[in-house]
Amino acid sequence: MIRIAVDAMGGDFAPAETVKGAVLASNEFPVSLILVGDKPRIERELARYRKKGAISVVHAAEIIGNDESPVQAVKQKKDSSLNVAVSLVKGKAADAIVSAGNTGALMASALFGLGRIPGVERPAIATIFPTPHGPILLLDMGANVDCKPKHLQQFAEMGSQYSEHVMHIQNPKVGLLNIGEEKEKGNQLVIESWPLLKEAKINFIGNVEAKEILDGKVNVIVCDGFVGNLILKFGESISSFTINLLKKELAKNLITKFAAFLLLPALGNIKKSVDYDEAGGAPMLGINGVVFKAHGRAKAKAFKNAIRVTYEAAKEDLVGCITKVESHA
Amino acid sequence: MIRIAVDAMGGDFAPAETVKGAVLASNEFPVSLILVGDKPRIERELARYRKKGAISVVHAAEIIGNDESPVQAVKQKKDSSLNVAVSLVKGKAADAIVSAGNTGALMASALFGLGRIPGVERPAIATIFPTPHGPILLLDMGANVDCKPKHLQQFAEMGSQYSEHVMHIQNPKVGLLNIGEEKEKGNQLVIESWPLLKEAKINFIGNVEAKEILDGKVNVIVCDGFVGNLILKFGESISSFTINLLKKELAKNLITKFAAFLLLPALGNIKKSVDYDEAGGAPMLGINGVVFKAHGRAKAKAFKNAIRVTYEAAKEDLVGCITKVESHA
Repeated sequence: MIRIAVDAMGGDFAPAETVKGAVLASNEFPVSLILVGDKPRIERELARYRKKGAISVVHAAEIIGNDESPVQAVKQKKDSSLNVAVSLVKGKAADAIVSAGNTGALMASALFGLGRIPGVERPAIATIFPTPHGPILLLDMGANVDCKPKHLQQFAEMGSQYSEHVMHIQNPKVGLLNIGEEKEKGNQLVIESWPLLKEAKINFIGNVEAKEILDGKVNVIVCDGFVGNLILKFGESISSFTINLLKKELAKNLITKFAAFLLLPALGNIKKSVDYDEAGGAPMLGINGVVFKAHGRAKAKAFKNAIRVTYEAAKEDLVGCITKVESHA
Repeated sequence: MIRIAVDAMGGDFAPAETVKGAVLASNEFPVSLILVGDKPRIERELARYRKKGAISVVHAAEIIGNDESPVQAVKQKKDSSLNVAVSLVKGKAADAIVSAGNTGALMASALFGLGRIPGVERPAIATIFPTPHGPILLLDMGANVDCKPKHLQQFAEMGSQYSEHVMHIQNPKVGLLNIGEEKEKGNQLVIESWPLLKEAKINFIGNVEAKEILDGKVNVIVCDGFVGNLILKFGESISSFTINLLKKELAKNLITKFAAFLLLPALGNIKKSVDYDEAGGAPMLGINGVVFKAHGRAKAKAFKNAIRVTYEAAKEDLVGCITKVESHA
């Protein structure tokens, strides 16, 4: 059984929703979950559920908040749920870790505790982006705001490995996010990255424009972390913006309310195809260990799905797959 | 009367829709329009409309296509509608120019023909972005893919002038697009730009995150042209993506079709609040002349609105406003 260290205290709705998500996951997947955090609080939450799978609790007295400076918090709060969870992986007591807490702190703690895969210059955060043609992988999503071409090449290689081995896409198509199709287009970084991606052992299909992100044309999209984070956050906001606009219009009068009632199944379908909760967590690729970040606003269902992808990545030996590619490079 | 040189041959639906848009504009605004392009074709289009305002035609034999290399096309096709329209402004036969054609070629032709405003290092393309709280201005939208902090400072100053004098926003709030609120956040470019924007004579309110673009929190948002172009194109695609998804769901069966019928006014409201056609054209700020780019897919209504904003910018002496700020800097 895959053993996953779960940071039970990270995220906006911890520990109630993280524990609930863990219970759901323990009933669905062949995992052994180690919930890390305030033991009495976690056990109180656990007591709410009768049916649960393999779950144990490891106490950690401190919590790293979302607003704390990542490196400082990781260094000072030795007994934080995040650090203790990472140390379980380091000490081989767990195979993987998942947290909905402070993204920078998770990256820092993982870097200090587990290190990088040999050959990898910069670990990256990849997001699984829902599209009507199935999920695609975007990276980097913010770990590296200033990148060199070599970094983008490694992001492409690591993303390709994840897509193939964890998302089970055969020969995944990898694209470089750019403002035009031609290889001469773009800023200096992407122009210099293009030939490196072309030579890499991936199925590089060239530049991908922003309007093609949702097209299902590619399986993996590569960009620097500044651009990736902006795209991710803008995408989230514009989806919820459109849905809120629609909700407001639908609630306007009796006729629109009646229409909304008739449309319930259709609206459900739309929501599902842009639902971040389905996608689960974001893998931190290049770390010498399986590390997943769940959304800070993750509720039980989203957190359960984050545990699911963490389980799948550990089962498929994600770290071994990336090591094979990067240590030869 | 403001005299506007109209590139009648630029854009996907030229000259039919550009001429129609010009006719509509001539009936609505106190403008004198000079349609530039294939004279017989333009006159054939004009003959369709009985009621029209002050419109004249200037012949130009060539057309610059959307796929042509901008600088090369501008240099070789001396008698293109774009070049001839710019030369009308240069020769003081027109006060402003609007084109739905090749963006790069318009910028190149304007740079060669009209030059930069003294003090401006890099002209920028600004887009008027519709939000439920009213339109906001984003720049640069792709003219400058690799920027220096000084460029972002000038974009902020020029955008502020446009917002105040053409969009009539008092003391417009200017934000720097970034991945976090704190001034230490972001890539090297934005970190170094922050203090310059802080010192500039604008109402700088600090960093703006991608999720706040549609919030109405700021009137002007500044970023480099690579990021701006990605955000613009992604925004366009995600809006039409959501609307298409909705349309598909609404057409599914009799019940949803009936619901869609009941919802027609609500859907109209939503469309209007994300409607790029209402916004009109994108000003090229920093050029020593009033130059507007209409959307390549602009139909008559959108093109008419592009003529409207071109008229307003010329009337408010946009070039004079920017000159005052930049020549002192």
